[in-house]
Amino acid sequence: MMLLIKLFQFMLMFHAFYSTNSNPSKPNVILMLMDDMGWGDLGVLGNPAKETPNLDRMASEGALMTDFYAPNPLCSPSRASLLTGRLPIRNGFYTTNDHARCSYTPQYIVGGIPDSEIVLPELLNKAGYRSKIIGKWHLGHQTQYHPLKHGFDEYFGAPNCHVGPYDNKKQPNIPVYRDADMIGRYYEEFKIDKSGESNLTQMFIEEAIAFIEKQHQTGEQFFLYWTPDASHSPHYASKSFLGTSQRELYGDAVMELDYGVGQILGKLKELQIENNTFVFFSSDNGAALSGGAYVGSNGPFLCGKHTTFEGGMREPSIAWWPGRIKPGKIVHELGSLMDLFATAVDIAGMKLPADRVYDGSSLLPVLVDDKMNKNKTIFYYRGNELMAARRGMYKAHFWTWSEGIPTLHLEYCPGMQVEDVTTRNLTNHMAQPVLFHLGRDPGEKFKLKLNTAEYKKGLQFIMEAVIEHKKTMIPGQPQLNMCDKGIMNWAPSGCETLNKCLHGPPSNPFKCSWPV
Amino acid sequence: MMLLIKLFQFMLMFHAFYSTNSNPSKPNVILMLMDDMGWGDLGVLGNPAKETPNLDRMASEGALMTDFYAPNPLCSPSRASLLTGRLPIRNGFYTTNDHARCSYTPQYIVGGIPDSEIVLPELLNKAGYRSKIIGKWHLGHQTQYHPLKHGFDEYFGAPNCHVGPYDNKKQPNIPVYRDADMIGRYYEEFKIDKSGESNLTQMFIEEAIAFIEKQHQTGEQFFLYWTPDASHSPHYASKSFLGTSQRELYGDAVMELDYGVGQILGKLKELQIENNTFVFFSSDNGAALSGGAYVGSNGPFLCGKHTTFEGGMREPSIAWWPGRIKPGKIVHELGSLMDLFATAVDIAGMKLPADRVYDGSSLLPVLVDDKMNKNKTIFYYRGNELMAARRGMYKAHFWTWSEGIPTLHLEYCPGMQVEDVTTRNLTNHMAQPVLFHLGRDPGEKFKLKLNTAEYKKGLQFIMEAVIEHKKTMIPGQPQLNMCDKGIMNWAPSGCETLNKCLHGPPSNPFKCSWPV
Repeated sequence: MMLLIKLFQFMLMFHAFYSTNSNPSKPNVILMLMDDMGWGDLGVLGNPAKETPNLDRMASEGALMTDFYAPNPLCSPSRASLLTGRLPIRNGFYTTNDHARCSYTPQYIVGGIPDSEIVLPELLNKAGYRSKIIGKWHLGHQTQYHPLKHGFDEYFGAPNCHVGPYDNKKQPNIPVYRDADMIGRYYEEFKIDKSGESNLTQMFIEEAIAFIEKQHQTGEQFFLYWTPDASHSPHYASKSFLGTSQRELYGDAVMELDYGVGQILGKLKELQIENNTFVFFSSDNGAALSGGAYVGSNGPFLCGKHTTFEGGMREPSIAWWPGRIKPGKIVHELGSLMDLFATAVDIAGMKLPADRVYDGSSLLPVLVDDKMNKNKTIFYYRGNELMAARRGMYKAHFWTWSEGIPTLHLEYCPGMQVEDVTTRNLTNHMAQPVLFHLGRDPGEKFKLKLNTAEYKKGLQFIMEAVIEHKKTMIPGQPQLNMCDKGIMNWAPSGCETLNKCLHGPPSNPFKCSWPV
Repeated sequence: MMLLIKLFQFMLMFHAFYSTNSNPSKPNVILMLMDDMGWGDLGVLGNPAKETPNLDRMASEGALMTDFYAPNPLCSPSRASLLTGRLPIRNGFYTTNDHARCSYTPQYIVGGIPDSEIVLPELLNKAGYRSKIIGKWHLGHQTQYHPLKHGFDEYFGAPNCHVGPYDNKKQPNIPVYRDADMIGRYYEEFKIDKSGESNLTQMFIEEAIAFIEKQHQTGEQFFLYWTPDASHSPHYASKSFLGTSQRELYGDAVMELDYGVGQILGKLKELQIENNTFVFFSSDNGAALSGGAYVGSNGPFLCGKHTTFEGGMREPSIAWWPGRIKPGKIVHELGSLMDLFATAVDIAGMKLPADRVYDGSSLLPVLVDDKMNKNKTIFYYRGNELMAARRGMYKAHFWTWSEGIPTLHLEYCPGMQVEDVTTRNLTNHMAQPVLFHLGRDPGEKFKLKLNTAEYKKGLQFIMEAVIEHKKTMIPGQPQLNMCDKGIMNWAPSGCETLNKCLHGPPSNPFKCSWPV
């Protein structure tokens, strides 16, 4: 009898082991990151046009995070932080060429994601995940920075923004890759019409659907980083979406992206894997307000992309995981894209590497178990400078700067002007930080009076966290200082096969000037 | 046989007649009008604090009207227009003391609602409705302007704003009425604590519930005008709501009002009369932004109360009528509080009087039958001047003025400044109106370039309606020109019984100066 029981126990163990391999118990992770989409662009977050029915439904089925931030008001640093779980000042996505200057990765940037950084798919692969990036990478375009060299198994998209068209003489058009090799260039094989017509978003949707279906068939758990860029200027939409919104091309692009979200969530439900898939939707920075009338909306928040005001970094954010996250939940816990790194690691049943500082923490306690952490702090950086910090309802500005690009007539805070706050020049408030209560004043319009009891208490609460933060801060080596027109996308891997290799100028590195 | 059929027909007719009287087939009408609540104060319209669960549910069960306007950016004119279906320039709620000056009904105003105006309950009473006003009247406080003299059957509330406390020597505290007589005064029998604690909203809720229950028992169809004023400065909330919001006293007040909406809709469901009751929620003007940090939110819109920018007149608006209005509907048709007059008349099965011009039309076609009218025009007035007009997506400003009250350091557009638009002085743009496309630019930040094809087409579309409007405009006699400290609420009807009659100065009429 004893022997029979032992044998049965062994069979159970074997079965469990076998099951783990054929039917992964680890949930899939999908991070959907939009480009320059603003907090106020979603119907559920108050856009008057209410043109995001799929995102609104996603929020009603999942958790809306109202106080969720990008780690930086600009795309490359924000994306590097999402994928490393660390602030740009640590992972190197900043510049020291100038004080408090935002920077990113145009195609003449020399730097990119350092090998020393652990990129999310590198970790997840250890837990048996297959990872794919669809859309914009933006973490460096030179060979050593290719996503397949930093943990991703599959790639469909481009290393840089889809700006152009270029003449391929002074500047090459941006290549589009499938996995290791380029398969064409924007404006050439991958058309973006002057009118804004392009099928790119549809391609990004199809790629996602195909990847999910493939992974479902193989039964292998997956990480999908879905990051289409139609809402970044120059905006585009496919023919059937053009002219359908109340907000011209920008709105059409948002409607098509919203449609894509609906398609992907629908596919998960169709395959009945929605209970085993954590999906998070967000954006890489606030809406760019410098594009004239064709811009996104940051809702009630001050300024936009490029700035450390709420409009620059507060993001439209939704967590979705049927069966695990209660439908219709509203989460006020402060959060950041960097939390998604820790969350994905948590979902995969792993721990964060102990050899470095991480700036995020898992969101599962608040999302799944309703355990809210009221002590989190958001640090708002521009380049090498901590501009502001938020803890609880209070936000302190240590430095302010609303400057646009005067030569290009670009404004970062059009129509907004708060005295001593939206300062045209970089202004030091360290002696008396400007304090706002974001609960009653989300728009950062009414400064708390200096030296009131509330001011002192609020500032002290923030400063405790700031002092701790600065004490342990070791800046990484800045990656966004040097530029070189010789290293642009002249001859990406695969260009020979396509007969699309171009000849660039010889290497001639120079200090990048920001803003470019 | 023929005789039998005739007899049967007669019985049917008799039955129909009898049914009409004992079981009213006419639906009840409830208009909920908030005071100074902003478009951006509702969760469903994007407030980051998401503290209006009952209103959010009301929207999901009814129709959210995203492009719905107050007829005026100030309380009295807006309320007079709601109840008369006509613009202030017609019904007399404006001043000619100064050009384009906003005015209202403080307690030393001489004027009020003229007898020549047909107030909504006067019409509805003809259709067998019993009408009650709960909350703020604001259409004049002298005896001849009492709500019971203008169609209401019942009254619980006050004729003016609850500002104070006054010393009852230079200025009396505002009386609270039950029906014809005062039953006390604010800050005396009806406490509003300095801390903001007051049970007034609870009283207004209880009054509404009791009225609905009474009418349900008698079976008599009713019109309830529920207009509590806790969100108007000085804000107040009852003890159990104080400190519960993320937005201090203002947020607490909004949460209690939201609770009240939930209670009223819940009562209708409990009594199973929700399918026979049309409910509309809105606000009298945009949130006042001049109150420092304790202010409401106008979401993405420009400026606030007092102005003819979107923040001054775009209102949070929800129509609710289970079984008739499809749940979760989003309505983009332009609308105005004045449409509610025509809608209520339509619901009561009546026609608008033909002897005067009405500025609204019934919303039932779009709400119930999905028939959208794309040709409606919104006219934005300040006092005697047409400042702006919207038709379709285009809004033209003919005059702009953002002036606050410098002596009181009050700002109508704090933190906002759009060149040549938020002008400190009344500025004439008639020669070249400032044009915005509100679909892609709801915040009125990006002026359309003059003389472009779009500018010309948009302006022409608006001007067609403006020319027609001006052609037929006959201004009413201005009611808000004269003031008199002798006619304040010294001795309202009922004061003898309570022994609360006060002695004021002799009558001494003077031209009111606006803003006061």
